[in-house]
Amino acid sequence: MAIEAARLSPSLAAAAFLARRPPPALSPFSLRRRFPLLRVLASSSGGDGRVVALSSSELRKRRGLSSSSSGAAADSASDGDEKLRSLRRLFARPDVSIDAYIVPSQDAHQSEFIAECFTRRAYLTGFTGSAGTAVVTKNKAALWTDGRYFLQAEKELGHHWTLMRSGNHGIPTTSEWLNDVLPSGCRVGIDPFLFSFDAAEELKDSIANKNHELVLVQGMNLVDEIWGDARPNPPKEPTRVHDIKYAGIDVPSKLSFIRSQLAENGCDAVVISMLDEVAWLLNMRGSDVPHSPVFYSYLIVEVSTATLFVDSSKVSKDVLEHLEQTGVKLKPYEAIISEVERLAEKGAKLWLDSSSVNAAIITAFKSSCDRRLKRKGKAGKKVGEKEASSDDPITGDPGVQNLVISAVYNVSPVALAKSVKNDAEIEGMKNSHLRDAAALAEFWCWLEEEICKSVPLTEVQIAEKLLEFRQKQDGFIETSFNTISGYGANGAIIHYRPTPESCSSVGSDNLFLLDSGAQYIDGTTDITRTVHFGEPSPRQKECFTRVLQGHIALDQAVFPERTPGFVLDVLARSSLWKIGLDYRHGTGHGVGAALNVHEGPQSISYRYGNLTALQKGMIVSNEPGYYEDNSFGIRIENLLLVKELNLANSFGGISYLGFEKLTFVPIQSKLIESSLLSPSEINWVNDYHEEVWEKVSPLLSGHSRDWLWKNTRPLLDV
Amino acid sequence: MAIEAARLSPSLAAAAFLARRPPPALSPFSLRRRFPLLRVLASSSGGDGRVVALSSSELRKRRGLSSSSSGAAADSASDGDEKLRSLRRLFARPDVSIDAYIVPSQDAHQSEFIAECFTRRAYLTGFTGSAGTAVVTKNKAALWTDGRYFLQAEKELGHHWTLMRSGNHGIPTTSEWLNDVLPSGCRVGIDPFLFSFDAAEELKDSIANKNHELVLVQGMNLVDEIWGDARPNPPKEPTRVHDIKYAGIDVPSKLSFIRSQLAENGCDAVVISMLDEVAWLLNMRGSDVPHSPVFYSYLIVEVSTATLFVDSSKVSKDVLEHLEQTGVKLKPYEAIISEVERLAEKGAKLWLDSSSVNAAIITAFKSSCDRRLKRKGKAGKKVGEKEASSDDPITGDPGVQNLVISAVYNVSPVALAKSVKNDAEIEGMKNSHLRDAAALAEFWCWLEEEICKSVPLTEVQIAEKLLEFRQKQDGFIETSFNTISGYGANGAIIHYRPTPESCSSVGSDNLFLLDSGAQYIDGTTDITRTVHFGEPSPRQKECFTRVLQGHIALDQAVFPERTPGFVLDVLARSSLWKIGLDYRHGTGHGVGAALNVHEGPQSISYRYGNLTALQKGMIVSNEPGYYEDNSFGIRIENLLLVKELNLANSFGGISYLGFEKLTFVPIQSKLIESSLLSPSEINWVNDYHEEVWEKVSPLLSGHSRDWLWKNTRPLLDV
Repeated sequence: MAIEAARLSPSLAAAAFLARRPPPALSPFSLRRRFPLLRVLASSSGGDGRVVALSSSELRKRRGLSSSSSGAAADSASDGDEKLRSLRRLFARPDVSIDAYIVPSQDAHQSEFIAECFTRRAYLTGFTGSAGTAVVTKNKAALWTDGRYFLQAEKELGHHWTLMRSGNHGIPTTSEWLNDVLPSGCRVGIDPFLFSFDAAEELKDSIANKNHELVLVQGMNLVDEIWGDARPNPPKEPTRVHDIKYAGIDVPSKLSFIRSQLAENGCDAVVISMLDEVAWLLNMRGSDVPHSPVFYSYLIVEVSTATLFVDSSKVSKDVLEHLEQTGVKLKPYEAIISEVERLAEKGAKLWLDSSSVNAAIITAFKSSCDRRLKRKGKAGKKVGEKEASSDDPITGDPGVQNLVISAVYNVSPVALAKSVKNDAEIEGMKNSHLRDAAALAEFWCWLEEEICKSVPLTEVQIAEKLLEFRQKQDGFIETSFNTISGYGANGAIIHYRPTPESCSSVGSDNLFLLDSGAQYIDGTTDITRTVHFGEPSPRQKECFTRVLQGHIALDQAVFPERTPGFVLDVLARSSLWKIGLDYRHGTGHGVGAALNVHEGPQSISYRYGNLTALQKGMIVSNEPGYYEDNSFGIRIENLLLVKELNLANSFGGISYLGFEKLTFVPIQSKLIESSLLSPSEINWVNDYHEEVWEKVSPLLSGHSRDWLWKNTRPLLDV
Repeated sequence: MAIEAARLSPSLAAAAFLARRPPPALSPFSLRRRFPLLRVLASSSGGDGRVVALSSSELRKRRGLSSSSSGAAADSASDGDEKLRSLRRLFARPDVSIDAYIVPSQDAHQSEFIAECFTRRAYLTGFTGSAGTAVVTKNKAALWTDGRYFLQAEKELGHHWTLMRSGNHGIPTTSEWLNDVLPSGCRVGIDPFLFSFDAAEELKDSIANKNHELVLVQGMNLVDEIWGDARPNPPKEPTRVHDIKYAGIDVPSKLSFIRSQLAENGCDAVVISMLDEVAWLLNMRGSDVPHSPVFYSYLIVEVSTATLFVDSSKVSKDVLEHLEQTGVKLKPYEAIISEVERLAEKGAKLWLDSSSVNAAIITAFKSSCDRRLKRKGKAGKKVGEKEASSDDPITGDPGVQNLVISAVYNVSPVALAKSVKNDAEIEGMKNSHLRDAAALAEFWCWLEEEICKSVPLTEVQIAEKLLEFRQKQDGFIETSFNTISGYGANGAIIHYRPTPESCSSVGSDNLFLLDSGAQYIDGTTDITRTVHFGEPSPRQKECFTRVLQGHIALDQAVFPERTPGFVLDVLARSSLWKIGLDYRHGTGHGVGAALNVHEGPQSISYRYGNLTALQKGMIVSNEPGYYEDNSFGIRIENLLLVKELNLANSFGGISYLGFEKLTFVPIQSKLIESSLLSPSEINWVNDYHEEVWEKVSPLLSGHSRDWLWKNTRPLLDV
């Protein structure tokens, strides 16, 4: 599954600026939304840190609001208009008092997948794509999304909305647009739980150019206000222990590593807010959100203790025992703010990943530090004296925020550790990929037979059948993302999501693109294949073959250690560039081991800012594509494991790395224009298909085994 | 000719840091030295800006110093020791009072090539490579150079010197080393003319980590003090007008463009200090330095005037007329500082390229601005009030330097304009390359015949003969750099410079690498070929073929507009990476049109910091290589013109760019292991050789025409 770009580091923002490429929409990691269980009521004049949990409907009642009641899917133009009117009415309230409101896709944890009850941006705009930011002023409403979603957004947005095609020439960023359409000195509101601290600071700085003020609207989310009772309930699914035979490393060892990192950086504690980081570190899994085996929680690791902030109803006896054995205490999910304030009060130095920890937590921490320092000032210590590291990477000016910053702002120590897989994780990934390949062989065999029959199948029916085949495999849990099942022109919508009401039938006149994946107990898969059930056009064959050449070039890449992924991106594009084609998404993303299908910190992208080196044990996708608007889409995706190579030379005395394939499903030979391939590219295809046969055929029988045989024959014999 | 990296922008420094690759030695553009005609005597307590020109020997006499008298080439160990002793004695003088002194390669203009009298670093250390920085403390002496020069430096450095191999793992930068070896709070001296302002600021910041102070030692260069009377005189060569038929655009048009840039940026004047920029802008050429047709000068362009600061003895009547016609006034070279101070006094806002303009000029400007503001402060205006743009890109803190910065710090407006060649420049480059190719065909024909004879030729004799062949061509002026003529192990010294005393004979048992170029009246060439006159080993053929594959991949690259060169670098390396090989230099540099053989702002390099996009009309070299220490060296270099392509598609509605070859000299087929090449690579070689024959054979006759025929036959027929 393609993603737009990996998490945007400050350096990426700088590089994107310098390269004069338009930066992505407001949110750096544009696939993230917010989980709003926690509501903080605090006055904007400083706040006492009191945490009050109020349900959305309670808040709504207290404020005497009515709201429309339809879900996002049932949106209509008049309804959209009413939602905007309701939202704008809230702007004027004395306790809100804003001129614009930004509704991003995130939850409080920067999660990619969230339950429907949190899809506020989709509810408000009607646009259901995973990435997008809505901005509403008193008389304008605009939605930013990236190239994957232009066509989908055009279809789904009501006429009250302006579509802003991020990345296209001349399209302003959200803040540039706000600076353009608002008169000087306006108040721009956000829910601080929905923004990472970095994103909020960046926004604040950029709108300050026109003297706008960023208002952290605390205590309520304005979209929830208008959503009202119609809003679904938040999930409360049970958690489970992730078996050590799949996890590979026990929790005490992982905690020791994190503590060694704390010691190295002179920190007393780290706040971990990314849900997959908590799950990985504690060898736990959950199912609060679709597609990712995670659960809503925060984790604070201190030098001698660790505290998991989670709804205790999700913790079974087994899990409780597991946590007790590893010395992890439990506290309520909502207690995170008060705990961070407690740490501030006692002068602890925190490790905070300000690119993922939300603005509500970090501003609460900073306010508490302030209050403490003021008291100490009164008690004789000079106010504003620096206590600890004050190198604020965000403002570059400690005085603007806060003179005392008892924190180290750095990438979470879990991120890199999690991305480098251990032997057990690699084994689980390999095993689950073979079972997934067997399910896919059965599925493709079935589909080829079905497509010849008289009753056409829809994109949704096909995706459902694929799910059935996967469900038969051992250890299957769920899909790892919404299946992208796109026939013909729908295949050109990079993150197309067919719906039963509107989806196409799949025939034999055009290309069919299928991007899908699964969560298994031992691993996570993500694979795209593009096929034609009839006779592909020469154009389609040429485009497919050039995408394949890019796929092969990246798969075969060898590179010295310390090479960031973006260096390799050109290998996947250059065959397309030769005829003036390209694709508007990254080439590779990290993949978790029985965890999120998209993870950092590595990526392979045309954006130059992610300097994370590809390292032995990392997993990345290899998924070049080509999309012809209103016509067809092509993508070929395998997952790859980064491995160290044993070459004849090692110039510079360093390691050279390459990839090992994890995905073993045939690539349709019919679509390959062999005359465009070099002999070594033809060998690659034949070798791959031979390996597919050897690895997957033992798991198959009957028709599907025959199908695999037929579809793994060498090129030129076809 | 390979260069290490193009000019390092601040973003490159950041990117290099983030990538955790060791940055290059202290100086960003490590091929530059300083021209010290101008001496500024100013007290370190602020200075009154008085400019006094004193000769080196006068200064020496005034200070009662003796010095050694040998040139760099005649250096010996005991002599080296004496130079260091003399230098260290100067440290203690009350008017110097430093603990360390840094001697870089630059002149006052960041020039790559300088007359021997300015090779202070070479004089002091004995190391004659073009790139290197010497640092001397009271008891240590170390020299930093990059991978091109490791072997050469090992040969040339005396035993008093420690060689620091920049880029190797664990090697500190000069400032890291100073922070390591000096006790806290030392004084580190530099000559401010020898450092760009950026480089000086970067140095100041990094040594401040250990509370060291950067001391701008004004009024004398300490190496000149010990060099004394033995130091050669500076050059005073005449200048000439560069004919409009080669320049393409007249001076008034160029000046208009610069003035439009000034207006756009709200500036009153720009100080141009790069010698090739002055020459390009004024359609003038000179010969003050070897290999580059430039002359020592500065240029200030104001809104309605332009002033050339140059020794008037270099200006003939023709040139004077040319300048008068275009409204350019003359002032003495030494008047640059007083003129900049005059502009500061009248409150002019200057455009300063702090990456090239030296620290002496910019600090003089800043001091004058300060004085003016102080006076205005006394007259009622608040001291320290910001007058104009104060976004100081260097310190990030205007308070540290100076509260008033009436300047815009940006890349020179000439740099990009100069790099994009006009039609006349392109025609001149093409024509001169064909004449150069004819000379090379005659040369290689001659050499192949000679090598069979009984009396062996040396590397130097061969380079001299090559010069003779070029001299016969119309419009030949001089070589564009020192010919790198390296047989066998000498070929592995990337910037090897053979000397008559020590060079090897060229035989038929090993590879011979020849990297050379010429300045013609209408263009500049730079070409490398590697050949074997006997039977190459399988290893040599494999390495050569992989270098060739990289060369072909880059030559054939197609890429969307706005692509920086570093994106393409991997194409040139990946064939080598496949077997664990690499090379320690960039892949491509810009080339001037009848100007410097190395120019910015574009480059093709494994370093990620140069975000300048390759643009239609730019010229770059394509020169991958491979070097096996103590064994052999391989490099294949052509020059390429960036052109817009007319492709079947243009995805995204943008332009797609590619390259057109300028260099037409056969690549030795004997060294190509055809079995490693794909059919399209074989076609590339055959097509290229066919084009070489068609373009160059009309310029040849007799043996050399036969040689060209023989050496342009298709592969597989060989």
